Amino acid sequence: MAGIQHYLQFNDLSADTYAYLFERAALIKKRFKGYEKHHTLADRTLALIFEKASTRTRVSFEAGMYQLGGSVVHLTTGDSQLGRAEPIEDSAKVISRMVDLVMIRTYEQTKIEAFAAHSRVPVINGLTNEFHPCQILADIFTYQEHRSSIKGKVVAWVGDGNNMANTWLQAAELLDFSVHVSTPRGYEVDQSVTGVRRSEHYKVFKDPMDACRGADLVTTDVWTSMGYEAENEARRKAFADWCVDADMMRVAAPDALFMHCLPAHRGEEVEADVIDGPQSVVWDEAENRMHAQKALMEYLLLGRL
Amino acid sequence: MAGIQHYLQFNDLSADTYAYLFERAALIKKRFKGYEKHHTLADRTLALIFEKASTRTRVSFEAGMYQLGGSVVHLTTGDSQLGRAEPIEDSAKVISRMVDLVMIRTYEQTKIEAFAAHSRVPVINGLTNEFHPCQILADIFTYQEHRSSIKGKVVAWVGDGNNMANTWLQAAELLDFSVHVSTPRGYEVDQSVTGVRRSEHYKVFKDPMDACRGADLVTTDVWTSMGYEAENEARRKAFADWCVDADMMRVAAPDALFMHCLPAHRGEEVEADVIDGPQSVVWDEAENRMHAQKALMEYLLLGRL
Amino acid sequence: MAGIQHYLQFNDLSADTYAYLFERAALIKKRFKGYEKHHTLADRTLALIFEKASTRTRVSFEAGMYQLGGSVVHLTTGDSQLGRAEPIEDSAKVISRMVDLVMIRTYEQTKIEAFAAHSRVPVINGLTNEFHPCQILADIFTYQEHRSSIKGKVVAWVGDGNNMANTWLQAAELLDFSVHVSTPRGYEVDQSVTGVRRSEHYKVFKDPMDACRGADLVTTDVWTSMGYEAENEARRKAFADWCVDADMMRVAAPDALFMHCLPAHRGEEVEADVIDGPQSVVWDEAENRMHAQKALMEYLLLGRL
Repeated sequence: MAGIQHYLQFNDLSADTYAYLFERAALIKKRFKGYEKHHTLADRTLALIFEKASTRTRVSFEAGMYQLGGSVVHLTTGDSQLGRAEPIEDSAKVISRMVDLVMIRTYEQTKIEAFAAHSRVPVINGLTNEFHPCQILADIFTYQEHRSSIKGKVVAWVGDGNNMANTWLQAAELLDFSVHVSTPRGYEVDQSVTGVRRSEHYKVFKDPMDACRGADLVTTDVWTSMGYEAENEARRKAFADWCVDADMMRVAAPDALFMHCLPAHRGEEVEADVIDGPQSVVWDEAENRMHAQKALMEYLLLGRL
Repeated sequence: MAGIQHYLQFNDLSADTYAYLFERAALIKKRFKGYEKHHTLADRTLALIFEKASTRTRVSFEAGMYQLGGSVVHLTTGDSQLGRAEPIEDSAKVISRMVDLVMIRTYEQTKIEAFAAHSRVPVINGLTNEFHPCQILADIFTYQEHRSSIKGKVVAWVGDGNNMANTWLQAAELLDFSVHVSTPRGYEVDQSVTGVRRSEHYKVFKDPMDACRGADLVTTDVWTSMGYEAENEARRKAFADWCVDADMMRVAAPDALFMHCLPAHRGEEVEADVIDGPQSVVWDEAENRMHAQKALMEYLLLGRL
Repeated sequence: MAGIQHYLQFNDLSADTYAYLFERAALIKKRFKGYEKHHTLADRTLALIFEKASTRTRVSFEAGMYQLGGSVVHLTTGDSQLGRAEPIEDSAKVISRMVDLVMIRTYEQTKIEAFAAHSRVPVINGLTNEFHPCQILADIFTYQEHRSSIKGKVVAWVGDGNNMANTWLQAAELLDFSVHVSTPRGYEVDQSVTGVRRSEHYKVFKDPMDACRGADLVTTDVWTSMGYEAENEARRKAFADWCVDADMMRVAAPDALFMHCLPAHRGEEVEADVIDGPQSVVWDEAENRMHAQKALMEYLLLGRL
């Protein structure tokens, strides 16, 4: 429906709004750490719709909504997929009559778009095959918390050209930083999905060492995301040289950070001495999902406060 | 246990109580629309026990309870059915020591009756094979919201002689209106379940067009309810002429409404131009499950306010 | 992490702390019965992690937390077990960043210990193969509510030398009472688990009648606990003489109580005339899980109040 602010892709919000959200998330986190009540969403209800399970997304949204004074209805689609028992449009019309906000974790981006088109309330993308905007929101918040503005910085993406890579590219264009992408052949980023062309914001490297050279942030993801398990063996071979290790961190900037959206497989996409080493901020990154999403939920329902 | 007001069948409450509930639901809905706090069930907990899954029933009860300031424990019986791991009587005794209210969606009406007989707290029928009183409560509330008192009006029931039809018949006798029922042969309403005999309140028609003639409300349900999937093919053949279409709506009263408890299968029990047309109030009907149930929960725990 | 008070085994707390908890639970229960608000854990969130399903543990913790003004995130591990998708250590680090308290029901005690070792927040054992401290906490609270201090009393354990038996033995040593254990051959208590040696606190009897003689409390459990279903037939034979019946209650003290953690199988481990008879306090025992656990959760987060 017209006039409703959804969050389906990273570029659904402006750079100016992101600046507000990062500031707001910092305030919200500070209050949480001080056990200060922050009930801006009292009496509001969030529906969580999961077609793919996720402990991290589940806990961060659910605990986050409670911390804002609101309530959560957690729906799993079980064996049946969204759109099977009834048209997605009908589900959107019914559910959005009863709750104030909806988060959906599903497969195709088109599904969440169909839902949003018929929803009376804001819809948040909790992960699709194409995008993962909440994770990048948290990651940039985490970078800035540990360092300074991400503007002009270099992020090295090592590994799969997946929903995380897609979202980093949208973010780089919007917030004016660079992503250096290195993927195995056959796992490149799909420009038809991101709409982002190569530029100062998006550079491609054959060798992951080259992508990491001078980077301010090195980040990766599992080799086999949920839904691609059948390709597991082929991927293990293809990705063998795309393991973030001490050598890659050594060519990055001296104060480079390492991030991973978790769960991680040590010895596959990242070595233990990197993810468990001093440059890794993965636990802060995980916690910040919650705080960044609290700022986002507040904004979608109440605007700037 | 004696003295506890349950809601297992529509006629568990009096006509006078329904008048109160409809008025109360209207007030509760108005407050919801105005974001006014209405925490009459603060510190009370509702247990939801589902043997059959249902997004609509789930969200309407859960979000509704939160809007009343209360809490919800959502239990699914998974593979095991209520009464398998332990006698239903034991489950009722234990659960009703810990929560203030229980909603059960199950198969046999006898199961919910056995639970209620040993419960210390009110039990609500969220759907059984035999009855669906919460849906009819919402439907009549919706009719009256759009038109006026249902007293003396004619409701056409087109399709399966199922739990919805059974409950409409109990409601007609209690609230003094008429239900014109047309079902395929072999799918008639079972009088031994409803206890309602044919009268001015309950008339049977072979031809669904005759049932709809002059009706103030036309309503139907899916051809194959949950639990009857094995009969799917046979039902598609038997019900072919019981699809609510523009012709049926044309012979109904000029200001007739169309309702459906959803999910709907367009092209089966209802044509798209009816359910998506101007006489359809199915989305209000769905939302009103929540408000009507809030009034009901309040009443069962606190009486008239 | 150092300095965090977990509750993984019964002897994680001192006798003095138990005295406080029993007093506190009585106060909390009184307030609950009087519909008095008792929101000591407002704005705190409890994560429930279930690898084994349990209605009773689920409802008692979840409703209990709501009664304390807090919130609950309920996680099931589904087909995958804790520690499969990612190392338990990683799950502990992430989840304990987002919630204030974690309850885990799992299989091996080592799993919950691994989680606790990396958790920033208190972890509660909601049942493991080895221990069930929350149940014994509730049982002793229930005994004292109906009688007087358990100090110096005799508890007869009839049946499986399982997690319940193990925990009773730890409790007896700590709180200075005696447990008379009678198990079938092959189902003895494993001293390497409990660390409790035979003494005035722990006596073993071949004949369950001898264990019950003079006992102040007779208690048992199902013959086949969850996870041991494959042994069902063998266990039915072995346990045939370990059914708590009227004869056993007759040799116990005249004012002896009967307890069972439920679900119960009448005619197997207990006869109906015992569990449904005047000496049985199983429904109070079930409700007291909730109140005792509320006192425990408060204590772990806030200390003595």
